[in-house]
Amino acid sequence: MVVKTDPKDDKHLREDKVHSETVYDGHFLKVRKDRVRLPDGREAGREYIVHPGAVMVIPILDDGRLLLERQYRYPMGRVMLEFPAGKLDAGEAPLHCGQRELLEETGYTAREWAYAGVLHNAIAYSDEGIHIFFARGLVQGKQRLDEGEFLELVTHSTTQLDALAASGELTDAKTLIGLLWLTRWQDGEWALEWRKS
Amino acid sequence: MVVKTDPKDDKHLREDKVHSETVYDGHFLKVRKDRVRLPDGREAGREYIVHPGAVMVIPILDDGRLLLERQYRYPMGRVMLEFPAGKLDAGEAPLHCGQRELLEETGYTAREWAYAGVLHNAIAYSDEGIHIFFARGLVQGKQRLDEGEFLELVTHSTTQLDALAASGELTDAKTLIGLLWLTRWQDGEWALEWRKS
Repeated sequence: MVVKTDPKDDKHLREDKVHSETVYDGHFLKVRKDRVRLPDGREAGREYIVHPGAVMVIPILDDGRLLLERQYRYPMGRVMLEFPAGKLDAGEAPLHCGQRELLEETGYTAREWAYAGVLHNAIAYSDEGIHIFFARGLVQGKQRLDEGEFLELVTHSTTQLDALAASGELTDAKTLIGLLWLTRWQDGEWALEWRKS
Repeated sequence: MVVKTDPKDDKHLREDKVHSETVYDGHFLKVRKDRVRLPDGREAGREYIVHPGAVMVIPILDDGRLLLERQYRYPMGRVMLEFPAGKLDAGEAPLHCGQRELLEETGYTAREWAYAGVLHNAIAYSDEGIHIFFARGLVQGKQRLDEGEFLELVTHSTTQLDALAASGELTDAKTLIGLLWLTRWQDGEWALEWRKS
């Protein structure tokens, strides 16, 4: 029952596009509805968000504490604890987006950056990928929030963040994956390549 | 600059609904567009997916290996490695959904279940929450895939899964958070309460 096949040969799983149309083109969300051909030759519909991609930054203060945000997330109906993050502008390099969002949302710049990887947060209905960066050598400046953006900065140690995740107070997926990266890197298990900015 | 306030007093961050309408009601996705009042009294628009919620199961085989799926995710344009998961039916209890999805997608039933917590995977534009369950004491039966559902079962040790995450081959957010839960539980840091099913 447990079958292992060559990952390169995914013809038995692949869905091919037959037709595609934009069915909702809003201010923030764009929804596409495609017809696809299934592996057995039959057709099915697929609806999904077309997203520009995003960047999350894990900012480590010189004393080892982490810089996070408390931000009201309207779909959730409450304030969420999360690492700084934001959407990529058209054509923007992920590192530039991380530096821009960290500065705008927190006022901090960082002397060193490291790229960790990408996460895909809603693979059933969105093509969004969130690039994960670490930042250290933080230098405090002035927050430059977008108009209509309200958030509060907080700091936590890795241990505190771990306890908030275990107790169910921290539930934001990207931030939980930031915690995974942090602990694995601190344990010397996952490697980061730091670069001066 | 780093401010800590009482989490209960979030008036300075809260957004209140002024108006709400469904702007897209598809076969799978439902999009709402709301007008909200910001903390400074001005108004802004918010678009988001209304989602029924979902369940992910972390199935542990008797030899300690984990049961995962390889499934073509059309928005990503490729096969993704992930723990079994599925959407809640209307009014369905999360545990029932986890048991149903595990049986349908993998053919396995489990003698013991433990609830880990919830994750929120797209807080900027979806109200989706994914409940996380562990399952052990697995008994193999017959897969009952929905029509048009194609997936492949694979097994990995926690060590293998960890290596796939570090190398960037495993990028699905819920599955990465499953790995976080697994390693923290195996380390004796995060507790699970197992119940016979």
